[in-house]
Amino acid sequence: MDEFSFIDAIKPSYYKQSTLIKGIGDDAAVIRSSANDLVTAVDIFVEGVHFKRETMNAFHIGYRALAANLSDLAAMGADPAFYLVGIVIPKSWSDSELKEIFQGMKELADFYQMDLIGGDTVSGKQLTISITVFGYCQKEKVRFRHTAVQGDVVFVTGTLGDSCAGLHVLSEPGEYKNQSYFIKRHRMPSPCLSFVKELQQIPRVTLNDISDGIANEAIEIAQASDVSIHLEEQKIPVSKEFSQFPKELQHKWKYFGGEDFEILGSVAKEEWPLVKMAADRTNTQVTEVGFVTSTEMDAGNVYVHKQGRKVKLDKNGYTHLK
Amino acid sequence: MDEFSFIDAIKPSYYKQSTLIKGIGDDAAVIRSSANDLVTAVDIFVEGVHFKRETMNAFHIGYRALAANLSDLAAMGADPAFYLVGIVIPKSWSDSELKEIFQGMKELADFYQMDLIGGDTVSGKQLTISITVFGYCQKEKVRFRHTAVQGDVVFVTGTLGDSCAGLHVLSEPGEYKNQSYFIKRHRMPSPCLSFVKELQQIPRVTLNDISDGIANEAIEIAQASDVSIHLEEQKIPVSKEFSQFPKELQHKWKYFGGEDFEILGSVAKEEWPLVKMAADRTNTQVTEVGFVTSTEMDAGNVYVHKQGRKVKLDKNGYTHLK
Repeated sequence: MDEFSFIDAIKPSYYKQSTLIKGIGDDAAVIRSSANDLVTAVDIFVEGVHFKRETMNAFHIGYRALAANLSDLAAMGADPAFYLVGIVIPKSWSDSELKEIFQGMKELADFYQMDLIGGDTVSGKQLTISITVFGYCQKEKVRFRHTAVQGDVVFVTGTLGDSCAGLHVLSEPGEYKNQSYFIKRHRMPSPCLSFVKELQQIPRVTLNDISDGIANEAIEIAQASDVSIHLEEQKIPVSKEFSQFPKELQHKWKYFGGEDFEILGSVAKEEWPLVKMAADRTNTQVTEVGFVTSTEMDAGNVYVHKQGRKVKLDKNGYTHLK
Repeated sequence: MDEFSFIDAIKPSYYKQSTLIKGIGDDAAVIRSSANDLVTAVDIFVEGVHFKRETMNAFHIGYRALAANLSDLAAMGADPAFYLVGIVIPKSWSDSELKEIFQGMKELADFYQMDLIGGDTVSGKQLTISITVFGYCQKEKVRFRHTAVQGDVVFVTGTLGDSCAGLHVLSEPGEYKNQSYFIKRHRMPSPCLSFVKELQQIPRVTLNDISDGIANEAIEIAQASDVSIHLEEQKIPVSKEFSQFPKELQHKWKYFGGEDFEILGSVAKEEWPLVKMAADRTNTQVTEVGFVTSTEMDAGNVYVHKQGRKVKLDKNGYTHLK
């Protein structure tokens, strides 16, 4: 199949977004301006680095890649609208597998009324998918990571470490409880878009999506906001059968594993009940996991409180006693 | 250098576009809406497929990759504004080479007042650059490829085949006339943005950029517009010393070589003088190379007229006598 037939095969038969003037079929796509801000990000996924054929089929590769991007939109408080896909295709991938990759993206895109509006397909040695997403956000309701302040409640959606647990289940065959749950969390993560949308009445919420582990994301918020974030070990939410895995792996996956695409946030104490209500309305688990302080000396740091001790958390996965 | 230091190294110290609310430094970039349409496209460039280290240094790889994307914006009649860069980095590329790639993009971006607003850097086996560009265009002044009609003048900017000639000069060492000219055309193509901007007073101009050779681009216009395009062999513009290359290569490069990033267009006969004036004002060479007809039987076809004969041109590079 040549590039043109391939584009024909994945080209949408109609577009859902009313602001789209031109989708696939010219040198570029054209989007009419609207009252909202446009939010955009790109992510690249490489075979052997971000996914393996042994643990993900083509459909899930596409699904998960778009889910990761949508998680970025969720973390900005944006509603997804469009996506562009650049793909590097090695000879070892069949036409039907490639269509499955796009089908995986389409399943998620259709759910969120997103349009595929363009892309580029080229040949190469390593399957590589570059997705650019576009979303809309009401002006002044974009959720940045630099807005956390002292006294905030720190919260997290869902449970952490499940995606890594799922990969472990797929890579190390054995007897596991809740096996299909963990596998699904790895292959088909759910971006927290509906929950984030329900937060719109709250004037200030600081959000980051957990793509690289809560440690990393908390440090990003702490640094951008010039505050310290304190996490309470026993409050970090994990799923029911998470304790079946070795303690060391639990710790690693929970803090540094990432790819759960849950949301880490911080909000003023008085708005915390509103966050819980938003979670209830969208059937989202939300857990208070810590608090924010602000002293000049400590700005940009993240601490885990555990059995009366305070441990500093580092980006790279090491923890130093303090 | 880790990802964070690398991002710090390439992060702009300030942004030029007034519609940008947030650039690099959060989960996504935020663009405020304006009165204009937003035009966007993605292109992927892969080492060994689109460029080789033997013929392009890091600076030129970046420069040329962004130039190719800007050419898409030119073909839509858009003014460049932003770009996102996803990059897959193999271990064999040094930090200073990577910075040079971004420097190459920045040189061109600065010239057009574009802002780098985000990206993703990951590791992989093959250097791969994915660029998403964003441009602005006045409503109703977007230049599509489906608007050519019978009686139109077909024109082309610059000279064709030079980029292929440049690659030939670099790959097959020898004695060539105008060597540095051809090499520059290959390594640092100029997107026709200023020329296209000067066409704004013309109500209808059909444009495609010549990324895959004039044959391909003419066929795209012919098919999208449901017309036939006729090119006159002796009018196709080539550069002064182009005739030094073997006749067969000249033919191949001129029609199918591509990557000159010139513009192929069609416009009503009465507006043709305005196109020539726009070219004069922007110091752009523009040449009338053919005309458009429209008969039901022939829609979507492209013909080359040569010494009284009419030859049908195919996408894949073959020509069939008719």
